[in-house]
Amino acid sequence: MMKNTQPVSLKQVKIEKGFWGYYRDLAFSSMIPHQWRALNDDLSDAPPSYSLRNLRLAADRNRGLSSGETYQGPCFLDSDLAKWLEAAAGRLAARPDEQLEKSIDEVIDLLAAAQEADGYLNTFGSLVLGKNRWRNLRDEHELYCSGHLIEAAVAYFEATGKRRFIDIMERNVACIAEAFGREPGQRRGYPGHPELELALMRLFHVTGNPHHARLARYFIEERGQQPLYFEEEKKRAGREQADWPPYIRPPLRQYQAHKPLKEQQTLDGHAVRALYLLSGLVDVAAESGSSELMQTAERLWDNCIRHRLYVTGGVGSTHHGEAFTFDNHLPNGTAYAETCASIALVFAARRMLEVQPRSAIADVMERALYNNCLASVQLDGTRFFYVNPLQVWPSASQQEPDHWHVKPERQKWFGCACCPTNLIRLLSSLDRYVFTYNSQTIYQHLYIDSEAVFSMANGLVQLTCRTRYPADGAVTLHKDGAACRLAWRVPGWCRQHTLMQDGRQVVPDIENGYIQIDCPAGPVTVSLTFDMQPCRVTCDPAVPENIGKVCLQRGPLLYCLEEADQGRELWRLYLPDNSPVDLDWHQAWPGDIPGLKAAGYRQADGPVDSLYRFAETPELVPVRLNFVPYYVWGNRGPGEMLVWLHALPG
Amino acid sequence: MMKNTQPVSLKQVKIEKGFWGYYRDLAFSSMIPHQWRALNDDLSDAPPSYSLRNLRLAADRNRGLSSGETYQGPCFLDSDLAKWLEAAAGRLAARPDEQLEKSIDEVIDLLAAAQEADGYLNTFGSLVLGKNRWRNLRDEHELYCSGHLIEAAVAYFEATGKRRFIDIMERNVACIAEAFGREPGQRRGYPGHPELELALMRLFHVTGNPHHARLARYFIEERGQQPLYFEEEKKRAGREQADWPPYIRPPLRQYQAHKPLKEQQTLDGHAVRALYLLSGLVDVAAESGSSELMQTAERLWDNCIRHRLYVTGGVGSTHHGEAFTFDNHLPNGTAYAETCASIALVFAARRMLEVQPRSAIADVMERALYNNCLASVQLDGTRFFYVNPLQVWPSASQQEPDHWHVKPERQKWFGCACCPTNLIRLLSSLDRYVFTYNSQTIYQHLYIDSEAVFSMANGLVQLTCRTRYPADGAVTLHKDGAACRLAWRVPGWCRQHTLMQDGRQVVPDIENGYIQIDCPAGPVTVSLTFDMQPCRVTCDPAVPENIGKVCLQRGPLLYCLEEADQGRELWRLYLPDNSPVDLDWHQAWPGDIPGLKAAGYRQADGPVDSLYRFAETPELVPVRLNFVPYYVWGNRGPGEMLVWLHALPG
Repeated sequence: MMKNTQPVSLKQVKIEKGFWGYYRDLAFSSMIPHQWRALNDDLSDAPPSYSLRNLRLAADRNRGLSSGETYQGPCFLDSDLAKWLEAAAGRLAARPDEQLEKSIDEVIDLLAAAQEADGYLNTFGSLVLGKNRWRNLRDEHELYCSGHLIEAAVAYFEATGKRRFIDIMERNVACIAEAFGREPGQRRGYPGHPELELALMRLFHVTGNPHHARLARYFIEERGQQPLYFEEEKKRAGREQADWPPYIRPPLRQYQAHKPLKEQQTLDGHAVRALYLLSGLVDVAAESGSSELMQTAERLWDNCIRHRLYVTGGVGSTHHGEAFTFDNHLPNGTAYAETCASIALVFAARRMLEVQPRSAIADVMERALYNNCLASVQLDGTRFFYVNPLQVWPSASQQEPDHWHVKPERQKWFGCACCPTNLIRLLSSLDRYVFTYNSQTIYQHLYIDSEAVFSMANGLVQLTCRTRYPADGAVTLHKDGAACRLAWRVPGWCRQHTLMQDGRQVVPDIENGYIQIDCPAGPVTVSLTFDMQPCRVTCDPAVPENIGKVCLQRGPLLYCLEEADQGRELWRLYLPDNSPVDLDWHQAWPGDIPGLKAAGYRQADGPVDSLYRFAETPELVPVRLNFVPYYVWGNRGPGEMLVWLHALPG
Repeated sequence: MMKNTQPVSLKQVKIEKGFWGYYRDLAFSSMIPHQWRALNDDLSDAPPSYSLRNLRLAADRNRGLSSGETYQGPCFLDSDLAKWLEAAAGRLAARPDEQLEKSIDEVIDLLAAAQEADGYLNTFGSLVLGKNRWRNLRDEHELYCSGHLIEAAVAYFEATGKRRFIDIMERNVACIAEAFGREPGQRRGYPGHPELELALMRLFHVTGNPHHARLARYFIEERGQQPLYFEEEKKRAGREQADWPPYIRPPLRQYQAHKPLKEQQTLDGHAVRALYLLSGLVDVAAESGSSELMQTAERLWDNCIRHRLYVTGGVGSTHHGEAFTFDNHLPNGTAYAETCASIALVFAARRMLEVQPRSAIADVMERALYNNCLASVQLDGTRFFYVNPLQVWPSASQQEPDHWHVKPERQKWFGCACCPTNLIRLLSSLDRYVFTYNSQTIYQHLYIDSEAVFSMANGLVQLTCRTRYPADGAVTLHKDGAACRLAWRVPGWCRQHTLMQDGRQVVPDIENGYIQIDCPAGPVTVSLTFDMQPCRVTCDPAVPENIGKVCLQRGPLLYCLEEADQGRELWRLYLPDNSPVDLDWHQAWPGDIPGLKAAGYRQADGPVDSLYRFAETPELVPVRLNFVPYYVWGNRGPGEMLVWLHALPG
């Protein structure tokens, strides 16, 4: 039950050019500094973050320097700072930067100063809860924030080799381990917002300390056991009601805490919580060798990707609780599809791939990465979507409460700013998603221009991947060093692929959707070509929303229609089944990504000026349809947007 | 600007047989007694009403007999009782009944006993508000309840000739008239929930007292003037926030009180309020001769029927505030389409028809009556829908907050029970919607089996209308008495009609959609035949929800699909444009209404077991489609229902 492959560590893969070169540079040069200003409340026209302000207050308080000021903002602000620290560590790993390292070290100084004598570390807890720490695990996020700080500490250690941050967090974990567990005097609690589980497993992998893995397993296995901890906690506090809408039944389903994970059949509740939890579950299941836990992880993953995943790689069908709803309910216009949830899906996918590379899993990871995740940021890196819909009707967003969360424009910052910091830590750790490997085989999941070194059974292997993907489908790989097996994912959307080894076409083995060849020691050049013809995507007819509709995809990129090209009322447009779809190089986007064009129709007003018409055949007028990649939508001013349009049987 | 025609009075038209005979009998024999029990808190398994209980308390309190008990339930309970009284009066007019009359008289005794010395009459006001009467016109419904009691009093007077109830209400109106107006010492307020305006006009029409019409005009014209009364009232009370969702901007749009009616361009806010207000507006505009008010009424009506009306005759696109949203936003699955709102649309339509008979207006009235209104009641008369959706997916109703208001089954009673009592008063006053007339011409708007007498310029005219409509389209009219002009609406859905006068086909005049003939004195027999072939209905493509979809209508009756006939996932079904639609007499409903059947398709799962599929043409499997009239849906157990299904261009 151990994992079949392992992830790369932070400095093992370099990504500097190609499609992702643009975004990595954007993250490193613009987004990380920009968000540093945000965390320091230094952005004009945006709500303040309070993150660093609060941390300084907590450090001062701990040192006996009380200014009389109080904590401001939501309770989970340490996590925003932690995600920035993790992103900044990724930046250091890719591009050493003394000034940035100094800023990080100063934050670490503050964290050390804010840490209480027994290892407790939480700004909100120290400033607001005081002796009431851990009083409300369900909602007050102390364990969640520790998880994010651990992830940051691990990344910083990998980037710099400095242990100080790790040491702080191991002291914090010791404090948590003393408070929680099944021994007398301990609380049998677990995080209201999962995250600590996966973070403990990262800490375990880097420190080798088995206590961390055991604590993670405790949190995973204790969750949802009777008596329900969150219910008990609520009774103790005299709290009357759950905060979530009364329609969520059973109430703790929102927290994946209504019953033990092993008994849960569907991936339910708050989507980010659900997928962080699933990520931790996969790690714990693999490490513990529990086939029951692994079956649980597989079952929940399958439920998610088979019945609850948007074609953009988004998850979460309702804004009520930012949550999953039920199977096959995937409304386009009111989708939540939170940026963080799609990022969490990428996290979970990579861990599933470590267990066993399967191309269908990597397809989901790629779908989320190139579409929902990337669409969340403006091309200049300074504005963000929290919600990533598949259909935007600005009139509805403005005038209809069920659509209020769907914004036609990205925003500078948020009162709850989990998403922008999550995106930069994803971009700055992108190298971790390209490959996984074991002693024999290197699996390439994503086609990203990169250079990497692997330590294998036969010795070191150097891989260089050169590609303009997804501008085109040509990938050239230079392997040097020891003999090894190389495996490449054949994407689910790809109808034809070829593999040339040192200039000769070869017919490789294929396993779980990965083509594989054995390479001898020394240099080998492999050319992969994936057919990038645009293709039509249809949806399982069990999903009512997309019946009779189609969307377009080219390579990993989904396309959409925008008001900027087509005018208003995009829902009037039809794409005939027999209409050829061509590349449109007149409208190329960063990374040399073409638009798509096709002959289509637009339903005309028709001859009768009344709302309902009898025995009237809709009149369709020929129009040219211009599709843009979903990841660039909303970069030309606010307006309508549509992913799924009507098909016209031909 | 006077009205072109007038409505009939309560005993002028008899309806005893045919399609509506069933429903009238249901209302008279079952629903009125059933609801009397509900108002007396005498229904098992249903929430208590408290209506009569509260009234008795108020009467006792006024007589100095205080039991110490307090008011229970929402503030507007007098209106439920008033609507029942109005319905019971209609029952008396049609079928004298000593026992029922005695019950009504006892309620009138209670009302007289509860009325305060200065004429104030409101159970909630007397028991809860005390000296704080009128403190919160926006929400506390004192004026609204007076309006309903006035309507009941007018109906009871018409039914029995007894003035006592009218006298009580004229004293109440005098109290209101003293409190509200533009004189020094008066409040410049108006009802938060319109209703009193139209009630005052009814009282004016039956008493001839011009003060009532002037007070109605004051309320209509004062509404929305600066400074906004509801804002001032809120400031006085120190209330911080509006009760409605913050998305409703400007906040008083919900009450149609954000600006003067003359400046309002669209019919906005709470749908029942909007349409009661429009009904009063039409009456006031006609009586006052104000062309500006009449243009306002026409503009708001046109906006409603052109952009905000469901094909079922439902109105109100969102449960948030039970309200209109914006033009062309007509979601099927989350429709509110409150029963009361559709009834209010019928009220407004008749008043518009009085101004000038136009068949398009009567079409809307008929659409609402035969579909949304009638669907609200179970065939046995004991259960009701408050919300009347066009698509039901029980999984969504159970598991998705935006659908919580959509019920797959009718309920026995409601905490807010405005709808059941509104339906019985509509059914028991149905005679008021068949004809309007003036001294020269009788206009028939609805084809309902009935007998009527009219006093015209040339003398009395007797009309007998015999028809099985809408079972078929044959209508036979016997006219006797004085010479007059007769006019019949040609329904908008009717592609062909014939008119035979005394056995000979005639080509009549047509004006505003009404065919018209001059009848000599003495007996004349006219046979009308309306083509009742089922027809396909399509929707303006400006409405995104219904693009590419079609629904079926036969005569005035809309049809739908149900899980009971088709199994689950109704959205998979397609109706080809070229598939003939036939009557299905094997499945006949009350009033001899056939089902409809057609050859159609169902989208199969297809060959790939994944959520998204590439380049796959949907596989359509032939199925027989069985449609049932919308008004009978939900009578065979809970399940899915669908009005608009996919068309398949042929």
